[in-house]
Amino acid sequence: MANEYIDIETLKFLLYRVNRLQDVLEMPNYEEYDKDSIDMLLNSAKAFSDKELYPYYREMDENPAHFKDGEIVVHPQVNNYMKVAGEMGFIAGAFPYDNGGLQLPSMVMNALGYIQEAANNHLPGYIGLTIGAAELITHFGNQHLNDTYVPKMLEGAWGGTMCLTEPQAGSSLSDIITTATPDGNSYKIHGQKIFISGGDYQGAENIVHLVLARIKGAPAGTKGISLFVVPKNRPNEDGSLTPNDVQTVADFEKMGQKGYCTTHLFFGDKEDCQGWLVGEAHKGLKYMFLMMNGARIAVGRGAAAIATAAYHASLNYAHERAQGRKLASTGKKDVNQEQTLIINHPDVRRMLLLQKAVTEGSLSLVFLTAKYHDYSVSHTDAEQREKYKLLLEILTPVVKTYPSEMGKVAVDNGLQVLGGYGFCSDYILQQYLRDIRIFSIYEGTTGIQSQDLLGRKITMENGKALQLLSEEITKSIKAGMAHETLSPYAKKLGEKLELTQKVLQSAIGYAMKGDYERFLADATPFMEFFSNILVGWLWLDMAREAQQALANGATEHSTEFYESKTHTMEFYYTYELPKTTGLAEIIMNRKSLTVGSDKKVFG
Amino acid sequence: MANEYIDIETLKFLLYRVNRLQDVLEMPNYEEYDKDSIDMLLNSAKAFSDKELYPYYREMDENPAHFKDGEIVVHPQVNNYMKVAGEMGFIAGAFPYDNGGLQLPSMVMNALGYIQEAANNHLPGYIGLTIGAAELITHFGNQHLNDTYVPKMLEGAWGGTMCLTEPQAGSSLSDIITTATPDGNSYKIHGQKIFISGGDYQGAENIVHLVLARIKGAPAGTKGISLFVVPKNRPNEDGSLTPNDVQTVADFEKMGQKGYCTTHLFFGDKEDCQGWLVGEAHKGLKYMFLMMNGARIAVGRGAAAIATAAYHASLNYAHERAQGRKLASTGKKDVNQEQTLIINHPDVRRMLLLQKAVTEGSLSLVFLTAKYHDYSVSHTDAEQREKYKLLLEILTPVVKTYPSEMGKVAVDNGLQVLGGYGFCSDYILQQYLRDIRIFSIYEGTTGIQSQDLLGRKITMENGKALQLLSEEITKSIKAGMAHETLSPYAKKLGEKLELTQKVLQSAIGYAMKGDYERFLADATPFMEFFSNILVGWLWLDMAREAQQALANGATEHSTEFYESKTHTMEFYYTYELPKTTGLAEIIMNRKSLTVGSDKKVFG
Repeated sequence: MANEYIDIETLKFLLYRVNRLQDVLEMPNYEEYDKDSIDMLLNSAKAFSDKELYPYYREMDENPAHFKDGEIVVHPQVNNYMKVAGEMGFIAGAFPYDNGGLQLPSMVMNALGYIQEAANNHLPGYIGLTIGAAELITHFGNQHLNDTYVPKMLEGAWGGTMCLTEPQAGSSLSDIITTATPDGNSYKIHGQKIFISGGDYQGAENIVHLVLARIKGAPAGTKGISLFVVPKNRPNEDGSLTPNDVQTVADFEKMGQKGYCTTHLFFGDKEDCQGWLVGEAHKGLKYMFLMMNGARIAVGRGAAAIATAAYHASLNYAHERAQGRKLASTGKKDVNQEQTLIINHPDVRRMLLLQKAVTEGSLSLVFLTAKYHDYSVSHTDAEQREKYKLLLEILTPVVKTYPSEMGKVAVDNGLQVLGGYGFCSDYILQQYLRDIRIFSIYEGTTGIQSQDLLGRKITMENGKALQLLSEEITKSIKAGMAHETLSPYAKKLGEKLELTQKVLQSAIGYAMKGDYERFLADATPFMEFFSNILVGWLWLDMAREAQQALANGATEHSTEFYESKTHTMEFYYTYELPKTTGLAEIIMNRKSLTVGSDKKVFG
Repeated sequence: MANEYIDIETLKFLLYRVNRLQDVLEMPNYEEYDKDSIDMLLNSAKAFSDKELYPYYREMDENPAHFKDGEIVVHPQVNNYMKVAGEMGFIAGAFPYDNGGLQLPSMVMNALGYIQEAANNHLPGYIGLTIGAAELITHFGNQHLNDTYVPKMLEGAWGGTMCLTEPQAGSSLSDIITTATPDGNSYKIHGQKIFISGGDYQGAENIVHLVLARIKGAPAGTKGISLFVVPKNRPNEDGSLTPNDVQTVADFEKMGQKGYCTTHLFFGDKEDCQGWLVGEAHKGLKYMFLMMNGARIAVGRGAAAIATAAYHASLNYAHERAQGRKLASTGKKDVNQEQTLIINHPDVRRMLLLQKAVTEGSLSLVFLTAKYHDYSVSHTDAEQREKYKLLLEILTPVVKTYPSEMGKVAVDNGLQVLGGYGFCSDYILQQYLRDIRIFSIYEGTTGIQSQDLLGRKITMENGKALQLLSEEITKSIKAGMAHETLSPYAKKLGEKLELTQKVLQSAIGYAMKGDYERFLADATPFMEFFSNILVGWLWLDMAREAQQALANGATEHSTEFYESKTHTMEFYYTYELPKTTGLAEIIMNRKSLTVGSDKKVFG
C-alpha cells in the first residue's frame, strides 16, 4: 500500500523544508514538539490510514449513507473511525492543553488531515466537523458548555456539526429564519437546516450541533444571528441523555462522497428542542466566521488530498499499461516493436505532470496558509501576529478555491490517462472525480470565495494584506534571481506580479466609482488568475529548496526526487502560468457583459 | 416540457440561417426535401423525444444496464425505442433510396440525433451504432450481406455494433489479435472485444457485429486487419435464426451513461462463430475509418446535446431560485430588500453565458461539419466534392473534441449554478456531468484526435485542408469587417488566424527535422487553441446572421432572440477567445518537458 495514494516524502519535503515547520515549532506554544515527534505522528497517521481508511474507500461509495426508518444508515466504519481517531488524538490535536488537547500546530493538523483524506475522503469530515464545533465552544462558550460537551467530543464519543444553511437561504446567511425563544437559561429552537454534513447517523451516541438562529426580535440581516449549542440528546446531570427534539428527516443523495452523510434536520418540531447560547447574542455569524479560516483551509486540503490520491492512481496505471509505440523519425510507428508503456507518451506525461504540479502546489499552499495561521495565533510578537493574520486572511479564499477548482481539473486528467477504463467503476479514478466535485461548493462556493478575495481581502486595510503578500513573493523572486537555473522563472514571476497590479488597478477603478457590481463581476476569473500566479510562486520556492538541497548534498531525499521538483516547476511555468496572460485580458475587459440589464441576453 | 432540454428555435436558426441547409437541399440527392418537410421532421423528432426519450432519462440512470445470468438487462424502453425509432425512419434516414433509406442530408440526420440525445443520451446510441454498422455493409459489403442484414437493421428490428477495441490493444488498433480462419465461404472468428456499446441486451432479436479481425497469415499492424459481419444469431434461409457463438461475458459498470450498455464479448469460445468478410481482405481498418467521420461528428453532437440540456436545466433553475441581493453603491447589501433571482448575479450570468456560448457554438460546428460531409458526397461537381472532403477531414477531429471537452466544462459550470443542489441526485445536473465525461474518450480520445489534427489533417496534401479552411474563415472576416458592430471582432479573429500560422510554424519546425515526437507533444494544447479560434469564427457568423436578420426585419425569431446571439458572440470574444493568447505561449515553448527521457520526472 506504500505510495498507493500519497507520497509521504513529498509531504515531508513541503512541510519541513519548503514551509519550515521547524520555525513554527520554535514558538513557545509548540515547544514540546520537535521534528522527530512530528515524524512519528505522520508515520502513525499513515499506518492508521492504511488500516482504518483506505480499505473502506470503495465500499463506502458502493454502500452510500441513506435514510431509513427515521435515521441515517452509514457504513459501520464511521462509528469505529470516530472512536479510533479520537483515541489517536486526531481530534484533540487541534486543541490547547487547557482544553484537554495536544496543542499541535495547524500545519501538523493539516498534514494529518491530508494523509487521512487522501486515503478516504468520506470519513475525516466526521472528525473535521467535530473539531470545528468543539472549537466554537472552546473559543466562545462558557465553562458549563465546555465541561458538558468538549471532553466527549475530543475523545470521538460525540460528533459535532455546523448548522448554517437553510432551504430558503443557501449562501445568503442574512436570510436565516430559524428562531430561538428565551426559555429560562436556555432557548427553544425552531427551524430547519439542510446540507448538514455528518448531521446524524445510526449508532452515534450524541451529536452536538452548533446552530445559527435568530433570537425573537433580533435585527434583520447578519447582525441578528446568534449561535447555539443544540445537542441531539440533552446531557443530564447524571450523565444520561434525553432526546432533544432534533429530527432527521432526510439524507441528501449525492453524486459523490456518498459515505459522508448530508442531512436535513428539523429542530423543535414538537416544541421541545433546547439550545444554549454561545457567547453573546447577535454575534453568532462573527463567531462562525472567526472559525471559518480553519474550515476553509480544510476544504482546500481535502481537495488537494483527493487530487493526490487520483494522481498516484493514474501514475501507477501509466507505469503498468503498455499501449502504442513511439513515433519514429518518419512519423510512423514500427508495429513489430513491442508496445511501450503509456507513461512514455508525451501527452500522457503532460497529463501526469499537470496532476503533479497542481497537487503538490496545492499541498504547499495548504501548509503555507496553515503556517500563517500558526504565526497569527502563536507568535510572541503582537505585530507579527497581526501581520500573519492579514496574510492568513488573504490566502484563505485562495487555499479553499485553487485546490478545489484545479484539483478537479487534475483528477479529470487523471481519469483521461486511463482512457475508457477511467470511466468504468472497476477503476477508482471515476470515484475521485465524483468526490472532488463538491469541494468548489463547500464552505462558500468558488464565486463566494472570489468575491471575498477581490471584494474584501485585497482591499482590506487599504491593501495591506496584498502588500505583505507581495513582499513575501518579492523575497522569493530575489532569492530565485540568484540561482542560474531559476532566474528566468523568477523573472517571469516578477512580470506576473506587475501584471497583477495592472489587473487590479483596472478592477478597482469601478470600486472607486461605487460600482461594486462591475468591480466584482469578474471576481472568479480574477481568482483563477491570482491563484495561478501564487502557485507559481510556491513552485519557485519548491524548486529553490530542491536545488539548494542538491547543492548542499542533502540526503533526506534522492537526487531524482529533488530533480523532479525542478522539472515540475519548469512544467508549471511552461504549461500553467501562461494561462494568466489570457486571463488578464479577460478581467481587464470593459464590456460588463455579465452585468444584468433589461436586455434579455439568454434569448 | 417545451424548452426543457433544448431550444428548437436556436437549432433552426443554426441549421437554416447560419449553416444554410437550403443550399444543401438544392443538390439533386436531396431534391425531394424542402424547408417545410424538414421542419415537419424536426418537429416530429421533438414530439417523439418528449414522449419516448426524455421521460426515461433519470430512470435509466437509476436502473443501470447490468449483466445477469449470461445476458444484459436493460431498461425496457431500449427495445421499444429501437422499434419506434425504426418506424419513424430515424435509422433509415441516413441511407440512400437504393438501400431502402430516406436519403436525408447528414445535416438533418444530425439535427434529429441532437434533439434525441438532448432528451436522453442513453438511448440514441443504440440506433447510432446500428446506422454505423449498416453503413459499413451498404458501402463495402456484397449484395448477399446487404439483403440479409440491412433491411432488418433499418427497421430497428436488429441492432448493430462496431467491434474494434480489445483488452491488450485499446486505442492501438494495430495490436488487434482476434482471428478469422477461412471456412468455406465464411470465416471462423475467435477472440474477444471490449467496450462494445449496445453489444447485447435482453430482448434483442439479433445484433449484427461489424468486427475487426486478422485473417490467419495476414501482415502485422493495421494493414493486416479485415472487417467481418458477425451476427449474434445466424439468419437461415427460412428466416429462422441460429445462435452464432457470440457470448456476452460482462457489462462494464460506469460512472455515467448507465442505461447504455457497454459489453464484453467473446467470439467463438465454442469454435462455432461464423463471420462474413466485408469487401476485400486486409482493408478492414480503411473501411472502418472511411465511416469514422460520421461517427466522430456523432460523438461531438452527443456532447453538444448533453451540454445543451444541462444549460437549459441550469438556466431554468437560475430563473426560479431567489438568493442574495444586488450590491449597492456602498458595496453593501440591503437586507430588508427581497432576495433577487440568482440569474441577476453577474457570476451566475457568466456561467450561463459560457454554457450558451459553448453549446450553441458546438451545435453550429456540428452542422457545419455535416454540411461539408453532405457536399463531399452529394455535390455534382467533383472538384467541389474534393474541396469539401478536405474541409470535412480537417474539421472532424475538432467536431469530435471541442463539444466533448468544452461541453464538459459547460456542464460543470451548469452544476455550479445550482450550488449544493447541483451535487445532489435530486437535481439532474450531476447526471449530465457524469454522462458527458465519456465523450472525450469515445471514438478516439482527445489526445488521439489532437494527434490526428496536427499530425495528419493540418499537414495533409501540403496543408491544403488548412488553406481551404483559412479561406472560409477569411470570407467571414471580410463580411464581418463590413458591419460596424462586428468589425472589432472580425479584426480580432484575423489576428488569431495570424497567430495560428505562427504557432504552426513553430510546431512544424520539429516535423521538418523528423522529430515527430516533439512535433506532436503539444498536440492537445494545440487542439484547444485551434478549436477555440474556430468556434470564434462560427460565433462571428452567427452574430452576422442575427444582425442581418434584424436589419432585414426578419420575423422568424424575436428581436431578443437575435440580440442574444450578438451578445453571446461578444461574450465569447471577451471571455473565451483570449485564452488562446496563453495557449499560444504554451505551444510555442521549446522546452520539450513532456518528452520522455532517462530523467525520472515523477520523483
